[in-house]
Amino acid sequence: MAYKIIAFDADDTLWVNEPYFREAENKFAKLLRYYETENKIHQELYKVITGNIPLYGYGIKSCILSMIQCATELSNNQLPSEIVQQILDIGKEMLTKPIELLPDIENVLKTLSQKYQLIVLTKGDLLDQEKKLDNSGLLKYFHHVEVMSEKNEAGYLRILKHLNIEPKEFLMIGNSLKSDVLPVLQIGANAIHVPFDSEWKFEKVSKKAMDNHDYKTLTSIRKIVDFL
Amino acid sequence: MAYKIIAFDADDTLWVNEPYFREAENKFAKLLRYYETENKIHQELYKVITGNIPLYGYGIKSCILSMIQCATELSNNQLPSEIVQQILDIGKEMLTKPIELLPDIENVLKTLSQKYQLIVLTKGDLLDQEKKLDNSGLLKYFHHVEVMSEKNEAGYLRILKHLNIEPKEFLMIGNSLKSDVLPVLQIGANAIHVPFDSEWKFEKVSKKAMDNHDYKTLTSIRKIVDFL
Repeated sequence: MAYKIIAFDADDTLWVNEPYFREAENKFAKLLRYYETENKIHQELYKVITGNIPLYGYGIKSCILSMIQCATELSNNQLPSEIVQQILDIGKEMLTKPIELLPDIENVLKTLSQKYQLIVLTKGDLLDQEKKLDNSGLLKYFHHVEVMSEKNEAGYLRILKHLNIEPKEFLMIGNSLKSDVLPVLQIGANAIHVPFDSEWKFEKVSKKAMDNHDYKTLTSIRKIVDFL
Repeated sequence: MAYKIIAFDADDTLWVNEPYFREAENKFAKLLRYYETENKIHQELYKVITGNIPLYGYGIKSCILSMIQCATELSNNQLPSEIVQQILDIGKEMLTKPIELLPDIENVLKTLSQKYQLIVLTKGDLLDQEKKLDNSGLLKYFHHVEVMSEKNEAGYLRILKHLNIEPKEFLMIGNSLKSDVLPVLQIGANAIHVPFDSEWKFEKVSKKAMDNHDYKTLTSIRKIVDFL
């Protein structure tokens, strides 16, 4: 197939991300264990975070604002100021984490960039994603970087229009069936799924939703070079 | 002059924005008046917000996180939970404000879009800016929208490269000398300054910084059509 542009997701496709959110949520649950069971805290936090997505969007700042809201609610508005401070610290720690590239990713990008035009399509905080790309050392392999507020069909169609290419000429590679695979297939473009160990509950899709869709799952990003 | 692309800043160039931040800061100062004078609260908040820009960037979510930090500090970590909740509410109110277009802007865009390719170059929260554009009804006049994490020379150079045009062919229109005019002139492109009533202290530049730079100041966006 003659792909003109190959797009990579960033978080958990180029580098480790989701485990840091899990770690942050566990710290949050420990901070609030005086008020509730850790299980209940995780459930409530998930509700607040996903409920706020239309307003806050994705990323670390949104997550921290939702953590503060969830904490005031769980404490029945009796939250000690020190805990607020500690939640802010969780956010600042996340925002300054060093980048941990996934295995083989640099070699794969080096090889593919000789033959294809590569771009990054990610969602989350604009500044945070740009910083991660700068720090990753991977920027030189990419022609273009786009941070999307939501990875849905409308978002991908806008990108294709902007890139001036047909869906058939576009291949998306990422770890999320919901964000990187399904909407891409639904607009008639191509996708490869490279699952990551840890996946956010919100990104899960049912097996049924993937019925009647052709896409390739590769267990390792390394296999992309041979596949193409 | 044969401009190929005319770029518009968004906040306080297309629609009202800065007064909403001033309003939010005044509410914040009132919430904390038990701890400090309003003047001191404004000063401390400014310090925290600008100190956090490298980590949080611009926009409402960043502002609210900084407000919460500032409040815990001003209260000597004795901040009542209700105030945390009220600060979160200030943020949610800002994020759901209706769009108030500046006078004449729609007519100006309609006229210019018949002759030029128009784009939007803004900074702030990606999701928030996209929503404002969607709600503004102005999206149809723009070929392309780019949310920048920082409006500096490197950022503008990246945009020009991406648009594949020369600096001379690019005209930027905006209300901020610091973000919309100075860095644009410094890369050899063109800029028109349309001041807005209210300007964030952080965006101010000295008169001296503008020495030896050619740019036009127009007192109203309406005058752009005649000028071009």
